[in-house]
Amino acid sequence: MVAKIEPFHAIAISRIAHRLAVEGRSIIHMEFGQPSTGAPGAAIADAHRVLDEDGMGYWESPKLKERIARHYRDSYDVHVDPEQIILTCGASPAFVLALSCLFEPGARVALARPGYVAYRNTLKALYLDPVEIACGPAERYQISAASIEALEDAPDGLILASPANPTGTIIDPGEMTAIAQVCRRRGIRVISDEIYHGLSYVGPARCLLQDMDDALIVNSFSKYFSMAGWRLGWLVVPANLIDAARARMGNLFLTPPSLAQHAGLIAMDSRDELERHVAVYARNRDLLLRALPGFGLSEIAPPDGAFYIYADIGHLTDDSLGFCEDLLRDTGVATAPGIDFDPVDGHRFIRFSFAVSSDLITEAISRMTPWFQARRRPLSEPTSASHAS
Amino acid sequence: MVAKIEPFHAIAISRIAHRLAVEGRSIIHMEFGQPSTGAPGAAIADAHRVLDEDGMGYWESPKLKERIARHYRDSYDVHVDPEQIILTCGASPAFVLALSCLFEPGARVALARPGYVAYRNTLKALYLDPVEIACGPAERYQISAASIEALEDAPDGLILASPANPTGTIIDPGEMTAIAQVCRRRGIRVISDEIYHGLSYVGPARCLLQDMDDALIVNSFSKYFSMAGWRLGWLVVPANLIDAARARMGNLFLTPPSLAQHAGLIAMDSRDELERHVAVYARNRDLLLRALPGFGLSEIAPPDGAFYIYADIGHLTDDSLGFCEDLLRDTGVATAPGIDFDPVDGHRFIRFSFAVSSDLITEAISRMTPWFQARRRPLSEPTSASHAS
Repeated sequence: MVAKIEPFHAIAISRIAHRLAVEGRSIIHMEFGQPSTGAPGAAIADAHRVLDEDGMGYWESPKLKERIARHYRDSYDVHVDPEQIILTCGASPAFVLALSCLFEPGARVALARPGYVAYRNTLKALYLDPVEIACGPAERYQISAASIEALEDAPDGLILASPANPTGTIIDPGEMTAIAQVCRRRGIRVISDEIYHGLSYVGPARCLLQDMDDALIVNSFSKYFSMAGWRLGWLVVPANLIDAARARMGNLFLTPPSLAQHAGLIAMDSRDELERHVAVYARNRDLLLRALPGFGLSEIAPPDGAFYIYADIGHLTDDSLGFCEDLLRDTGVATAPGIDFDPVDGHRFIRFSFAVSSDLITEAISRMTPWFQARRRPLSEPTSASHAS
Repeated sequence: MVAKIEPFHAIAISRIAHRLAVEGRSIIHMEFGQPSTGAPGAAIADAHRVLDEDGMGYWESPKLKERIARHYRDSYDVHVDPEQIILTCGASPAFVLALSCLFEPGARVALARPGYVAYRNTLKALYLDPVEIACGPAERYQISAASIEALEDAPDGLILASPANPTGTIIDPGEMTAIAQVCRRRGIRVISDEIYHGLSYVGPARCLLQDMDDALIVNSFSKYFSMAGWRLGWLVVPANLIDAARARMGNLFLTPPSLAQHAGLIAMDSRDELERHVAVYARNRDLLLRALPGFGLSEIAPPDGAFYIYADIGHLTDDSLGFCEDLLRDTGVATAPGIDFDPVDGHRFIRFSFAVSSDLITEAISRMTPWFQARRRPLSEPTSASHAS
């Protein structure tokens, strides 16, 4: 049977949000993982130049591949040849490419639960078998070397994400090295999704290439570089997979958008502007962390990086999608239900994305605080009880 | 074993061409299927506006979906609901989406040989089995109802392309209707690649939706709309596949480039400018058709549409890649070897892409005429014989 793929439930929330906005409601969008800021000013200026000067045929930027290779040397002190960089239309197709280069149908690929829904769904669409590793508070919601070691049958592959979506948790550098060791020993091929690199609040995340030179690395201009709708990402492959990856890129996708490649090159040297966005996210994170106790939300994943807080709302509901809908209708704050990230336990989690302005975060907090406070009584005690007393 | 995917050999030709250009040689690029013109002026003007006004997050344009739906009514008199339109990052991922919605690994999908190399390679990357139907001069290099009827085991799927790459041949309207009938009767799901629609010199190509309302249609802004590097295409799916297609789009690809969607909407109403490009291609086609007898090339596929001429060079070589390299090095004219389109007979074919200016076509003809004339003697008679006599 053709694989059945689940939709993103956050999209359903977003559609309600847009309907409410049309009705005149004030909506604060915290449901999607995207910056509300645009591309760096210098990148936009260059895009204006390219629009006027370039016919924009199918194209792959040699300079951008060189610049990304240099980024690995500058940021992580690892050598990557520009030919190892495959430019893609965002991280999503880079992930498809990586899986296609490594695995054939039936291969078993391990990943953290909770995790980005597209990992699981893309595995299923390619007829690969997801091996979900349950990661709760005790594991800081992350894969560990011990959890890989504990799998009786070694999987063919492993997907790492640090910082992770939906939790923001970062794998400790020592743990990352240990994970690489166990994977090497057990013959497990690793894809590391490093799309949230650059967005960390507890020290930088480690690049898996620092520990494992045959890892495949997925990254993108959509998060740190604030260029989500430009659709530009990349995949780093080891030298022996360059031909396989290039052949797949040419056949399945052709080339990434030309304008985005020009602008992305400039964005990589726009650090000052981009670091100002990170400062905003850090402020937003602080505002939310101070406010959450007032919401009665104390069980959260450690928000080490990215721009997410993943909170346990199990004392309030066992229907996270319905909960997000209620929260949206009552307060205008759109959030993502945990079921998008965890088919087993996600019904009692919610994800807040804080990649909006600090003013909007402040406003969202002031709307949500009384709403959550009104719900603090446990589910077993009906709301009407207080009226009866 | 992980699927082995062949690279595009035209890319190897293009790389040599770029090296020769760096050495100061004058190169005429007829190796790739892309317009040398840019997007329509009004589309570029709108892109400037959007760059300044829009943050460009993940986005899908409702207006563009409506406009494309209207295009089906205006051009083909068929009703398509905007929800049936899935906007993609070009035709390539649209084709991946279509295959993923319809088939599971092991499914058999028929296609014409010669044909666009990515069909065969994408099928292999998705572990689908290509069923190649040999189409020679007698079949006008195209699939026919009889050729589908003649397959003993009905395949699960069929890929149609009209106008086709590399031949430019268009399926006759009556034949298209007959193909739809036999496919319906035999339970064969059809994907119609209509990326070259709008580029025809013998009357318009028929849209398969005119004959088969559950067909999947692939199209793009890369050819007629002259926006190859913008990376925007679409897939039309029947109503019962909308959820499957949307879920795959969201997980495997997310969204198409925002700027391209804005510009594409404007491009669809820039017919005057785009028809001027078609007039150039028509002129180029005439120039080549008049020149080919002087090259000694008389066996060509009927160039009904697209911007290609696929010519038999079997009297000159049985190594089309080496032939293209020689032609490039000697004349500076880059072409595509037949082996990119036909693994069996392509060694004796060459594809000329004429989507450049008429001045360049004239120049290419003046360089190629003496080159081909010097080779007119058959392979069996070595060049050195003339020196010995």
